[in-house]
Amino acid sequence: MVDITQKQSTHRTAIAQAVVKVSRQETIKAIQIGKVPKGDVFSMSKAAGFLGVKKTADLLPDCHPLPVEHCAIDFTIDGLEITVEVMVQTFYKTGVEVEAMHGASVVALNMYDMLKPIDKGVEIHHIKLLKKTGGKSDIHNG
Amino acid sequence: MVDITQKQSTHRTAIAQAVVKVSRQETIKAIQIGKVPKGDVFSMSKAAGFLGVKKTADLLPDCHPLPVEHCAIDFTIDGLEITVEVMVQTFYKTGVEVEAMHGASVVALNMYDMLKPIDKGVEIHHIKLLKKTGGKSDIHNG
Amino acid sequence: MVDITQKQSTHRTAIAQAVVKVSRQETIKAIQIGKVPKGDVFSMSKAAGFLGVKKTADLLPDCHPLPVEHCAIDFTIDGLEITVEVMVQTFYKTGVEVEAMHGASVVALNMYDMLKPIDKGVEIHHIKLLKKTGGKSDIHNG
Amino acid sequence: MVDITQKQSTHRTAIAQAVVKVSRQETIKAIQIGKVPKGDVFSMSKAAGFLGVKKTADLLPDCHPLPVEHCAIDFTIDGLEITVEVMVQTFYKTGVEVEAMHGASVVALNMYDMLKPIDKGVEIHHIKLLKKTGGKSDIHNG
Amino acid sequence: MVDITQKQSTHRTAIAQAVVKVSRQETIKAIQIGKVPKGDVFSMSKAAGFLGVKKTADLLPDCHPLPVEHCAIDFTIDGLEITVEVMVQTFYKTGVEVEAMHGASVVALNMYDMLKPIDKGVEIHHIKLLKKTGGKSDIHNG
Amino acid sequence: MVDITQKQSTHRTAIAQAVVKVSRQETIKAIQIGKVPKGDVFSMSKAAGFLGVKKTADLLPDCHPLPVEHCAIDFTIDGLEITVEVMVQTFYKTGVEVEAMHGASVVALNMYDMLKPIDKGVEIHHIKLLKKTGGKSDIHNG
Repeated sequence: MVDITQKQSTHRTAIAQAVVKVSRQETIKAIQIGKVPKGDVFSMSKAAGFLGVKKTADLLPDCHPLPVEHCAIDFTIDGLEITVEVMVQTFYKTGVEVEAMHGASVVALNMYDMLKPIDKGVEIHHIKLLKKTGGKSDIHNG
Repeated sequence: MVDITQKQSTHRTAIAQAVVKVSRQETIKAIQIGKVPKGDVFSMSKAAGFLGVKKTADLLPDCHPLPVEHCAIDFTIDGLEITVEVMVQTFYKTGVEVEAMHGASVVALNMYDMLKPIDKGVEIHHIKLLKKTGGKSDIHNG
Repeated sequence: MVDITQKQSTHRTAIAQAVVKVSRQETIKAIQIGKVPKGDVFSMSKAAGFLGVKKTADLLPDCHPLPVEHCAIDFTIDGLEITVEVMVQTFYKTGVEVEAMHGASVVALNMYDMLKPIDKGVEIHHIKLLKKTGGKSDIHNG
Repeated sequence: MVDITQKQSTHRTAIAQAVVKVSRQETIKAIQIGKVPKGDVFSMSKAAGFLGVKKTADLLPDCHPLPVEHCAIDFTIDGLEITVEVMVQTFYKTGVEVEAMHGASVVALNMYDMLKPIDKGVEIHHIKLLKKTGGKSDIHNG
Repeated sequence: MVDITQKQSTHRTAIAQAVVKVSRQETIKAIQIGKVPKGDVFSMSKAAGFLGVKKTADLLPDCHPLPVEHCAIDFTIDGLEITVEVMVQTFYKTGVEVEAMHGASVVALNMYDMLKPIDKGVEIHHIKLLKKTGGKSDIHNG
Repeated sequence: MVDITQKQSTHRTAIAQAVVKVSRQETIKAIQIGKVPKGDVFSMSKAAGFLGVKKTADLLPDCHPLPVEHCAIDFTIDGLEITVEVMVQTFYKTGVEVEAMHGASVVALNMYDMLKPIDKGVEIHHIKLLKKTGGKSDIHNG
């Protein structure tokens, strides 16, 4: 685990993305009108995602535990693709990009888990970091 | 959460895949010759993945806790892509596909986390279920 | 911890209740029309409750870990009181009443946490077991 | 999750209460003379409560993880009622009232769990915040 | 992780031991008369040990999650040495010896943690398996 | 739990040790040439140890949760004995010695768990604090 005892705390943000692709328009419809049998897909996946962001250091050996001071999760529907965007912020000595990516992956998996009974063809694509600010170098990916 | 009290236990298997794409041949080399500063990428990510598989029901609200009775994790390198394959087995009333997918995502994220200091362009693609057997319907995806 | 190695598995159910009392009619309204700033109170609290049920043995030293095989959470609004009902089922050697009660308490606390910014007077009353079946003795409380 | 990145750390305290009501004087006696078969009810419930306070952000999606810097748990017996008081302190950007309430609920549930074999009529009442200091507004409830 | 899907469940027991050595007779006395400032050392360490036994598979990657169906923890004082004995039982496909050893280590560490303010010379010796029954081969160590 | 709200953060280090004794030279050999069936013993145990250090406050009731800002784990082989050394650092109000000792115990247990199939005589000795700096008093044990 990297030694960060001597680093300064700075304001850090990271935005990660996951793309969940369903196989039928009916699945999108079921989410939108609240007819997925397991419940409200976006609200419950957001709850799972918040917890996932906070548990990152519990799962990844090298990750530093850190004070997650803000997390926001948004969903955008485009055809059969739902884009999940997870934004994490902290004021600490190390960045939150892995936290954001873990959150995005947990949200996507929870959507998969909730949609499985009504759509066998759900896939998860492109878990990636869109943006980070606050460390030695900022990153901005399209 | 789906009611499984009346279901029969059967032998279940699931194999999930994640693809980790690095940006430079040097990264692959560093993994192979054991020169990644954070340590042995495959062994440590396997450890994280085993724990991830077991913690699936801790993170996803609707997932049933279940006895993970076997887990194997393999890595295949092809050019700049590393394919992670996670196989999970149990003898229980419900399947282990979400467990396998969660394991694959944790392995991929841990690789991302360990490789981050030497390669800023690592991405995670295609977390998907390759195969499942043992429930009402088997699934075989290419 | 009680020794249950020699007990037979039987079908067990438990229903527990918590009562959340808000201080103003506007709070009930905000929940119903989805205007609570932290999000959908019932869906997110249900997600927290499912996880809480599953983590009971993680928090209470004497509780046996057990396969939670069904969980359902319902909400009833009556004036300023919201009654939370958590039903848990398993097929195992010991009952699920503490799991149901822990679930009810986590749901209630999560509602408190989400409503706090708009209502300073939320209280949690009467976490109790309403019903249990499947062990040596059944319990039915009004 | 509320954005607290720009807030100042201040000294925060919160005191929460839960009331555990047993059904018979013999139960109180058994606790006092150390004859509850599952062990020392107050010490073991205090252990569970300390852990419960620390795990609040693990269970409630919107709760910020925070440095719990002090926790004290006290018990007062009055007839058939045992009042649990949980005090939590930190020096951080957000308050610890939900932590104190979660601690109180875990202590009460653990007492319920330990007393269940000798008293089927234990109930949990009034999980509420008694006092908080250190944020925008202090609260003092009777 | 070893594949146990095809194994038969049998009754398994394991007893593990840890030895905690304090540096002064006053420490033993303080434990016995309940004057350790952090609280009742044996009761609180027993609570920690029960939880430790149950969380073994959460910490050790290769450990199978399993139904802990009995756990008992005893303490014996001999001069400056306190011997902790942790017995675990299950009816399952694999043994509980690592669970018993993890429990013994958590109990010993918790004693160390609680005694630290009054005795700087506490040490932990000999975490070992005393006995196991129920698998392919029984083990009995003096 | 000790009240640390009024303490100053300082730089803290702790080094703890555990000794794992195997019963046969072949076991040492198998570790060194990577022929232990469960995988790379040192890398996987290091992963478990990092997670163990971070989860100390999850298991020990009185431990404060704290920002683990550095952790390093080393192994030294001497005959049949493998010495595990765990170093932990933070910049916080309380020390990390129990974290280091918990890490050492988890590493040792994981080695035991991985070696069990090839060596029935593995034992864990001397979990102790070697050194701590940064609090009221430094400790240096041989």
